[in-house]
Amino acid sequence: MVKNTIAIDAMGGDKAPKAVITGLAISAVRNPNTNYIIYGDENKILPLIKNREHLKKVSKIVHVEDWIRGDEKASKSLRRARTTSMGLAISAVATGEADAIVSAGNSGALLAMSIFGLKKLSGISRPALAAVMPTVSGEVVVLDLGANIDCSSQNLIDFSVMGIVFAMNVLGKPYPRLAFLNVGEEENKGKNIIHEASGVLESSHFSSFYKGYAEGDKIITGDFDVVVCDGFSGNVLLKTAEGTAKLCTEYLKQVFSSSLLGKISYAIGRASFLSIRKKMDPRKHNGAVLLGLNGIVVKSHGGTDSIGFAHAVDLANEMSIGKYNELIKTELDKLNPIHDKK
Amino acid sequence: MVKNTIAIDAMGGDKAPKAVITGLAISAVRNPNTNYIIYGDENKILPLIKNREHLKKVSKIVHVEDWIRGDEKASKSLRRARTTSMGLAISAVATGEADAIVSAGNSGALLAMSIFGLKKLSGISRPALAAVMPTVSGEVVVLDLGANIDCSSQNLIDFSVMGIVFAMNVLGKPYPRLAFLNVGEEENKGKNIIHEASGVLESSHFSSFYKGYAEGDKIITGDFDVVVCDGFSGNVLLKTAEGTAKLCTEYLKQVFSSSLLGKISYAIGRASFLSIRKKMDPRKHNGAVLLGLNGIVVKSHGGTDSIGFAHAVDLANEMSIGKYNELIKTELDKLNPIHDKK
Repeated sequence: MVKNTIAIDAMGGDKAPKAVITGLAISAVRNPNTNYIIYGDENKILPLIKNREHLKKVSKIVHVEDWIRGDEKASKSLRRARTTSMGLAISAVATGEADAIVSAGNSGALLAMSIFGLKKLSGISRPALAAVMPTVSGEVVVLDLGANIDCSSQNLIDFSVMGIVFAMNVLGKPYPRLAFLNVGEEENKGKNIIHEASGVLESSHFSSFYKGYAEGDKIITGDFDVVVCDGFSGNVLLKTAEGTAKLCTEYLKQVFSSSLLGKISYAIGRASFLSIRKKMDPRKHNGAVLLGLNGIVVKSHGGTDSIGFAHAVDLANEMSIGKYNELIKTELDKLNPIHDKK
Repeated sequence: MVKNTIAIDAMGGDKAPKAVITGLAISAVRNPNTNYIIYGDENKILPLIKNREHLKKVSKIVHVEDWIRGDEKASKSLRRARTTSMGLAISAVATGEADAIVSAGNSGALLAMSIFGLKKLSGISRPALAAVMPTVSGEVVVLDLGANIDCSSQNLIDFSVMGIVFAMNVLGKPYPRLAFLNVGEEENKGKNIIHEASGVLESSHFSSFYKGYAEGDKIITGDFDVVVCDGFSGNVLLKTAEGTAKLCTEYLKQVFSSSLLGKISYAIGRASFLSIRKKMDPRKHNGAVLLGLNGIVVKSHGGTDSIGFAHAVDLANEMSIGKYNELIKTELDKLNPIHDKK
């Protein structure tokens, strides 16, 4: 039985520490062999944890009064790594005390502090932010989502390795299908960095996984398990998909509440409507992961509730128990000598 | 009364020439003062037009047997500008015989031939592909959508001018609100070309229209009338929004057909379901426009039917009757001296 430890920033997010601790309690039931080190204001955390025996017995609370504010600049936060709940939780991973950190706090600060504190995995040119998105038939992992605005072909190759291992390890797909996000499916379409990375993958041991280019409308059709792109495009992709899905549910609400027949239809089909809402529930896919560092870093959405936070902790558990980072190293070694370990 | 002429490529698109001619007939009812020059195979066009008196009397058919295939390479198509329906329709705009061209044919060929045949508008650094997307409360024009993979800040400024005039002229918004697509709303977020273009707009006569940066989820909320981006990001935005909307309607269908209560609910709420489908009908927003050339170029979706093609012809009519290109020149002159007319 693998025993692992997760560091929790209890003070990050709009509903901290309540959503954090109640979410943690939910995940702790599903992952009974994990220990937690909780960083934050003891006076607020203790009352939340005291009636949750199963969580209490696997948790250690480290009292910290200071925390990174949601609107704080990332550059400024770096100076407060030794005094804040987020900074100290990252340090626990850096020293090896914990295998992963989960925070719902300031994204920019979490990225900057993690990159600075945990350092890059050997062989990885740049870390990448990855998230799982729902598709018609399952799930797809997309990276980078904004950690790198400009990317080189080497970055895209490294993202591919990290994405393939993620799909195998976390999504449970033994033969992941990978595509580069592009503006057309033809070979000569799009950016040069994509063409270059494409050439490398085609001649690597990943060639059987590599399926070419995909446009934005083909990401959620379920044709691919891994989609790789630069951080700017990835952010546009993720945010646009979120916004459009929200617009659709907004339309649904408007239309069915504006007429009597619509209301009756809603009352009768309530189970169907709820099943759609459940299918599109963003909490199920809460948790972006910063890949490519010496340690697992999971960013929960700042506005999420306890159910969403629990999913983020589940993800950290899966990745640390599954030894994600060790598998990355193995795959990078296989990619040699074409991979130049920059 | 303004009289204008539109050149029609009758042979482009999956359902040509039938969807083209029937669509044209629909638009001709709505735009009674427009003349059409129809390029294509007379033997196929004449039977479609013969019972449509209102269209027949404003149309001239130019018999051309050759046409650009859907899978033809853009570079190859350039050599066939003088022998194909698409090429000759563009030539009609170049010679001044027509004000606009509408085609549902090969996008790459239409872009390449139009840029080559019509030349850039004086003062515009690069043409851009623009399209109107639906929002919660109305419509937003987004550009560039893929004509330019890499962009300079000057390109973004020119796209802004073209977008603002489009919103005023075609969408009927006297005070359009413009944003740059970016990965965050803070000033220091994202690409340098965006920061530079932002600085120019802030100190220009457009400053009251310029609202800063927008993320992908804020495009369809109705907060903006014009969204400017490089062609790669724009393509990702458009395709992702299309794909996600399709996924939502797919979910709806699945869920309501999988249970008896769902089916009853659908039967009762049919009007509401149809109203959603109507709201999200892509045919209403069919027609991407290539802006910044000496002539109006409208690209209809290749797979659209007559209703979709009619909307594309409507768009060409609005822009040529509204003297879109002349307004661009006026605004560019006002932008001087900061605009360096590259």
